[in-house]
Amino acid sequence: MNKLTDIITDPKRIIAKNAIPPSHLTDGLKLKYGYADILVYPKTTAEVAAIVKYANTNNLNITTRGAGTNLVGSTIPNGGIILDLSLMNHIVELDKQTFTVTVQSGILLQDLQQFVEKHDLFYPPDPGAKNATIGGNISTNAGGMRAVKYGVTRDYVQAIEVVMANGSVLNIGSKNVKDNTGLALKHLFIGSEGTLGIITQCTLKLIAKPKVSQTFIVGFNTIEQAISSITTVLHTLTPTALEFVERKVAQWGERYSGFKFPLPNSQAYLIIMLDGSDLQTIEQLRKLLLTNLGDCDYFVAEDNNQTNQIWTIRGSLVRAVEAITEQDPIDIVVPINRISDFINFTKQLETQTHMRMLAFGHAGDGNIHLCILRDNRDDKQWQSDLQNVHQALYQKCLELGGLPSAEHGIGTAKVSYYNAAIPEANRQLMRTIKQQFDPKNLLNNQVYMTVV
Amino acid sequence: MNKLTDIITDPKRIIAKNAIPPSHLTDGLKLKYGYADILVYPKTTAEVAAIVKYANTNNLNITTRGAGTNLVGSTIPNGGIILDLSLMNHIVELDKQTFTVTVQSGILLQDLQQFVEKHDLFYPPDPGAKNATIGGNISTNAGGMRAVKYGVTRDYVQAIEVVMANGSVLNIGSKNVKDNTGLALKHLFIGSEGTLGIITQCTLKLIAKPKVSQTFIVGFNTIEQAISSITTVLHTLTPTALEFVERKVAQWGERYSGFKFPLPNSQAYLIIMLDGSDLQTIEQLRKLLLTNLGDCDYFVAEDNNQTNQIWTIRGSLVRAVEAITEQDPIDIVVPINRISDFINFTKQLETQTHMRMLAFGHAGDGNIHLCILRDNRDDKQWQSDLQNVHQALYQKCLELGGLPSAEHGIGTAKVSYYNAAIPEANRQLMRTIKQQFDPKNLLNNQVYMTVV
Ligand SMILES: Cc1cc2nc3c(=O)[nH]c(=O)nc-3n(C[C@H](O)[C@H](O)[C@H](O)COP(=O)(O)OP(=O)(O)OC[C@H]3O[C@@H](n4cnc5c(N)ncnc54)[C@H](O)[C@@H]3O)c2cc1C
Ligand SMILES: Cc1cc2nc3c(=O)[nH]c(=O)nc-3n(C[C@H](O)[C@H](O)[C@H](O)COP(=O)(O)OP(=O)(O)OC[C@H]3O[C@@H](n4cnc5c(N)ncnc54)[C@H](O)[C@@H]3O)c2cc1C
Repeated sequence: MNKLTDIITDPKRIIAKNAIPPSHLTDGLKLKYGYADILVYPKTTAEVAAIVKYANTNNLNITTRGAGTNLVGSTIPNGGIILDLSLMNHIVELDKQTFTVTVQSGILLQDLQQFVEKHDLFYPPDPGAKNATIGGNISTNAGGMRAVKYGVTRDYVQAIEVVMANGSVLNIGSKNVKDNTGLALKHLFIGSEGTLGIITQCTLKLIAKPKVSQTFIVGFNTIEQAISSITTVLHTLTPTALEFVERKVAQWGERYSGFKFPLPNSQAYLIIMLDGSDLQTIEQLRKLLLTNLGDCDYFVAEDNNQTNQIWTIRGSLVRAVEAITEQDPIDIVVPINRISDFINFTKQLETQTHMRMLAFGHAGDGNIHLCILRDNRDDKQWQSDLQNVHQALYQKCLELGGLPSAEHGIGTAKVSYYNAAIPEANRQLMRTIKQQFDPKNLLNNQVYMTVV
Repeated sequence: MNKLTDIITDPKRIIAKNAIPPSHLTDGLKLKYGYADILVYPKTTAEVAAIVKYANTNNLNITTRGAGTNLVGSTIPNGGIILDLSLMNHIVELDKQTFTVTVQSGILLQDLQQFVEKHDLFYPPDPGAKNATIGGNISTNAGGMRAVKYGVTRDYVQAIEVVMANGSVLNIGSKNVKDNTGLALKHLFIGSEGTLGIITQCTLKLIAKPKVSQTFIVGFNTIEQAISSITTVLHTLTPTALEFVERKVAQWGERYSGFKFPLPNSQAYLIIMLDGSDLQTIEQLRKLLLTNLGDCDYFVAEDNNQTNQIWTIRGSLVRAVEAITEQDPIDIVVPINRISDFINFTKQLETQTHMRMLAFGHAGDGNIHLCILRDNRDDKQWQSDLQNVHQALYQKCLELGGLPSAEHGIGTAKVSYYNAAIPEANRQLMRTIKQQFDPKNLLNNQVYMTVV
């Protein structure tokens, strides 16, 4: 096999340098752009394997791309091949008896979720970007709203098919619920941001679709009250979702989505979702929680319509911000008892620096999504102000025992904070593994791992 | 540092070759014995690090030992040092606010469970051997009864401290709920049976102690009925535990424990535990299940006493068998829809071969524990009969998409079945990792990984 055009013969699936759309040279933020020699759209594992073998022989970088929704620069190529997996979107098998579904990795999360729910099954991981691919979700170990109760993507990956850097194909894992046969290779690939191999297919664990679910909002007079109530919630019940939103952020979401957010007189909210087998228990739990919370306001979504509006507003927050000004997204995680410390710190920092910061996020996990707003700063000002604020934020995060990435990954954007947070000995071990899996350092070599 | 006696100065904690008790030269089955030059009982991570460094310099094998309860030969030493961690049993910190507990790895599971439950917290993993250490549980990714609902040990390990083969100390993980910063090194160590490093300390995730729990037994007229009901149970509710026991096995347990097992006229049982926030919901679920199950008998444990008796009988089954005859324990896992195929196969095999086999296990996970009974076979007959039965069983297991170890690990006992079940390419990758982590191949080099 001498040429890529021998592997991908359909001209629509192989795009030369100059014809690559700019949207394929960037990530979900579309602020930085890279370059590449060729863009290919394989349809089968065999094609992926052949392309990777070709790249290996010819020493070409490969940047693997799902839907390119990541916010950390991990799909910004630096030459070589862009391997776009979006056409590998087939459902291979739904196995109701073992509660598993096997799919090609390029399937979109929203398509997978809809498909299994039609069969009364449920795929719990639910990151904000429903138009991301499952392969991207696995490669970033995506979390999302329902992680408080159901865990993250890692917890639902039963098996993966991986194309290794030399073009060989590995099958790891099985439909068995338990597995104690050797080293957990599967877990190495999960969250590895495309640095160790290309995930072409996977078997995912499903659960029975929860019979009922209820969303309600608790409104508080102060942000402090809202944040200090998070622990009360977690001690009282296991929420399916537990999201923190400030009033001012909700307003941006209202404007962007066109829906009204309830309890307009509150200063901050916890959006809580409960699910289970019957409404009665859920009602009981909600009442118990409201008693435990004491002084607060609340709103219960009465129907699907109201529920959807609330989650649409929550889901639109990043986009709502981006519609108004450029923003820098922070995906810090702190131990759950340090959330208020961290948010209070951002408030002080906001006052000190005059940088606007909008905080919201997966409160139940200690995962704070902060948008730092550019507003009308010029390039130079923005870069220098941002750097100062970053330094302060990540420093504080480490002081509180936190980490620079909860669920978005390191990519290229968070490398320096990753270096500061993870001991050199650990990073050295990761590099050692990378070196063994990809000796020529061709797979996603733009991202964190190879940067010392 | 020249001598081990400079590192461990307390003579009670350093035992020379001839004084090593035979119980330290074997595993939980006590059928095979190894040899070692020295047995040491470190108390601190610093001592472990110094011992490992010493071993590395002097090219001495290290066999790490928790409580030695494993059933797969993984603590049978082949010379060098036995590193017994049982004195490293301190609780370092209970952090109620983050729902975590940090302990030295030599603490016993039962001590940890009791400690956290006193604080109304709960450590869900619950393998049969309560006198195992947490370090052993992590190194074998122990599962147990409650895995159906709560998952296995892997799901509760937030952070580990590891002494690497060169004596350096690594800290991996944190108290943060989510973590997407680099490769999942933590998961490599979990389940690695002591081959990659020595876990000296760990931070474990806890949950709120379930408020109520109920145990009940469903009795069936035939084994087939019991097994085919497993799927109905899993489709109706999420049991905390779902165990399958045949009548004849229960009888052995009765005799061994001195307690009576309910429903003596049934041929097979499912023991089901449900837990939750209120008894009413549990009752509702149980009734719904009984309706869905149709024709069957049932018994509900009315108080702690009855509950304990049932679980004591279940917990005593392996020991009950061993009190009567030598047995070979099988820890096969099959996809949950193949359980009945597998059990039916063992019935046929029993008839064909006249080897008695007692099946029980974690039905909800597809994890079948089979005791193959030696009865009065002489050594030669037993070895040859066992080999034939093994061959048939593991072959069938693979045909059904199963694996040779669900939760006991590979150790030395299951190596050939591991080799047959896991593709060579995957095993090669594991060896590569082992080679990087332990270039001199000194850590637990008796177990599976190094055997090609
Ligand atoms: C509006 C918005 C909200 C979000 N909310 C959340 C949230 O709540 N929780 C959360 O966890 N995340 C969230 N994210 C991040 C999101 O989870 C990731 O962007 C997504 O998982 C990436 O999927 P993708 O298909 O777009 O992958 P891409 O962005 O294309 O790629 C991401 C990384 O994975 C690699 N990769 C992709 N596919 C493969 C594959 N098959 N094999 C190997 N490597 C591969 C890429 O090389 C890259 O390194 C959000 C993103 C947006 C834009
Ligand atoms: C009666 C009985 C019932 C059981 N039931 C179950 C069950 O229901 N579910 C289940 O999953 N298992 C079960 N098991 C197996 C049990 O989980 C393991 O035996 C136990 O987890 C091992 O712990 P240990 O402290 O005894 O470790 P050991 O037996 O001493 O060691 C086990 C392995 O881990 C290594 N190791 C131990 N500690 C460390 C450490 N700190 N760092 C690195 N490596 C270490 C050892 O070198 C060895 O390879 C059962 C065992 C028995 C005897």
